[in-house]
Amino acid sequence: MSKHIVILAGDGIGPEIMAEAVKVLDKVNQQFNLDLTYSHELLGGCAIDATGVPLPDQTLEAAQKADAILLGAVGGPKWDTIERSIRPERGLLKIRSALNLFANLRPAILYPQLASASSLKPEIVAGLDILIVRELTGGIYFGQPRGIRTLESGERQGYNTDVYSESEIRRIAHVAFQLAMQRNKKVLSVDKANVLEVTELWKEIATEVGKEYPEVQLSHMYVDNCAMQLVRAPKQFDVIFTGNLFGDILSDEAAMLTGSIGMLPSASLDENKKGMYEPCHGSAPDIAGKGIANPLATILSVAMMLRYTFNQEAAAKAIEDAVGKVLDQGLRTADIWTEGSQKVGTSQMGDAVVAAI
Amino acid sequence: MSKHIVILAGDGIGPEIMAEAVKVLDKVNQQFNLDLTYSHELLGGCAIDATGVPLPDQTLEAAQKADAILLGAVGGPKWDTIERSIRPERGLLKIRSALNLFANLRPAILYPQLASASSLKPEIVAGLDILIVRELTGGIYFGQPRGIRTLESGERQGYNTDVYSESEIRRIAHVAFQLAMQRNKKVLSVDKANVLEVTELWKEIATEVGKEYPEVQLSHMYVDNCAMQLVRAPKQFDVIFTGNLFGDILSDEAAMLTGSIGMLPSASLDENKKGMYEPCHGSAPDIAGKGIANPLATILSVAMMLRYTFNQEAAAKAIEDAVGKVLDQGLRTADIWTEGSQKVGTSQMGDAVVAAI
Ligand SMILES: CC(C)[C@H](C(=O)O)[C@@H](O)C(=O)O
Ligand SMILES: CC(C)[C@H](C(=O)O)[C@@H](O)C(=O)O
Repeated sequence: MSKHIVILAGDGIGPEIMAEAVKVLDKVNQQFNLDLTYSHELLGGCAIDATGVPLPDQTLEAAQKADAILLGAVGGPKWDTIERSIRPERGLLKIRSALNLFANLRPAILYPQLASASSLKPEIVAGLDILIVRELTGGIYFGQPRGIRTLESGERQGYNTDVYSESEIRRIAHVAFQLAMQRNKKVLSVDKANVLEVTELWKEIATEVGKEYPEVQLSHMYVDNCAMQLVRAPKQFDVIFTGNLFGDILSDEAAMLTGSIGMLPSASLDENKKGMYEPCHGSAPDIAGKGIANPLATILSVAMMLRYTFNQEAAAKAIEDAVGKVLDQGLRTADIWTEGSQKVGTSQMGDAVVAAI
Repeated sequence: MSKHIVILAGDGIGPEIMAEAVKVLDKVNQQFNLDLTYSHELLGGCAIDATGVPLPDQTLEAAQKADAILLGAVGGPKWDTIERSIRPERGLLKIRSALNLFANLRPAILYPQLASASSLKPEIVAGLDILIVRELTGGIYFGQPRGIRTLESGERQGYNTDVYSESEIRRIAHVAFQLAMQRNKKVLSVDKANVLEVTELWKEIATEVGKEYPEVQLSHMYVDNCAMQLVRAPKQFDVIFTGNLFGDILSDEAAMLTGSIGMLPSASLDENKKGMYEPCHGSAPDIAGKGIANPLATILSVAMMLRYTFNQEAAAKAIEDAVGKVLDQGLRTADIWTEGSQKVGTSQMGDAVVAAI
């Protein structure tokens, strides 16, 4: 039976990198007989321009019906000054929440061909392969009450609520442990349990769920120490499992250890492995329209989609291998280019991947 | 008129490193005629052992009366399982709050002699000199309501409140801008204003206060991007100014960029520049009692105390220069030792600094 993908190209470089991802999708769809269909919808700034809101009902309905969603990137200076409640990011937060995409998987992998791109010494990062599992629909991102109020004294006060229930922690913990079982069987749960009660509960539930996975080695670390250890010795980690805000910070830090965030895909999954897939990088408005953006993170997001939502391991692997091949051939977009390699544009890179599949 | 310092050696390596800092204090006290007196009090695990609580009244009263406080480090596995409300960290949080030490200054400086200790490439970190200004008595660390409650469904829920008022943000902003005036006149305010209202207010007040310092260049960054930029290109920063939780995470990350957190002091100041000074590193229970801990961060904390609380720039400089000299001489404690340099113990290092003043 045919499966449907909703494509949200978004803003900035979104449409350019998405065009290449679609080429790759077309190729594997045909080659592996995947019977995938797709349609395009608006999210973010382009949706604001067309409809006045960042997540139009039509997009949400299409995304709800779809089997998977492929997202480019949203946002840009054009929409930075409009009313807060309808900024592009709000569309992103709303779709995550509405589709219950609670499990955000953010790999930080250093491609051996790109080892020199890292700002860390090669011996510290060579072979890096971390998976950050971030809770995506709870915590302080969505907690109530929140806002800015005026105190009796006349001054204003801003406030947000960080909140997690046992069941929210438990379901994301299972995702982390299950993924660790397919990897090196190590889970690090990150908290600030010495200060924050909400993460004290996090740590307790992580420990409890860990008992169901006796083969997995569970450890705990405070978030400040983890931020430090990622710089000092990142290869000590396998799966890092944490809440929405810490996950936001640590996954970006971990991604940057590779020096090539133009290479990193991500997945946001619901209970049934339906997911939204997107590159880790943003919409890069400064280089939009120039045809120089790196499409590989979006292409690798397609691979993640085939693996996690569609259980098409062979097709996923074919894409990942093809990316490895084009890197071996020395092809590089500007963001990962170094002396001696061949600088290519967005569509040349996409074509090279398609050819290598 | 004589000034009084309360010394809190604390736990783990605390007493060892403090002994060396006191040697240095004795030396400058005499050499620069500072007329400083000091007394010792208990904080943390040692206070729990002696009195049942991490911050005894006697310590708090002495600290309140003192002109400055010099702290070693607190905590250790021995007190990790006791009741939460009386853990060593609670003593630390309580003294910060009771003394209104809202301005936490955490320099991340890479000593040229120790450049190779960093896990980052030399060209990325050589000459690094960042000052993190962290709000220390507000935000989610102290926000109410907080706790773990049982929902109607029977499951538990953990919650904390991140909260800042205009005046709290304003006073720490002034500290950041004033420090930037003495440095490279650049302030970066870190927020997550695209998601959290409390940091939206932070950003707004930072901007407002910035107008009073027209010579200082103010910019803003989201916390996730800042965590990333610290890895990619840390030398772009001068003063980084942020809230309690983000400051905790980013200051540890920034400290680790130097690869030698055994070298980094910190200051926590109130409105009147009264302060508590302490090394950035922890109590390192694993090496306690072995005489191998690095006393330099505590010694440099003495220098910060002389500079910020006592306005004794010459004495502060003398200590910092002496530390530079012992590093030039090739003396290294185990944590910063590399092939070709001379490994020394805690007290040898302290003696060498005293001799170099
Ligand atoms: C754009 C922003 C709301 C978002 C987040 O903080 O989750 C982004 O930083 C991310 O990590 O996907
Ligand atoms: C021990 C802990 C409560 C403390 C903090 O989080 O503030 C420490 O990490 C620090 O940064 O001084």
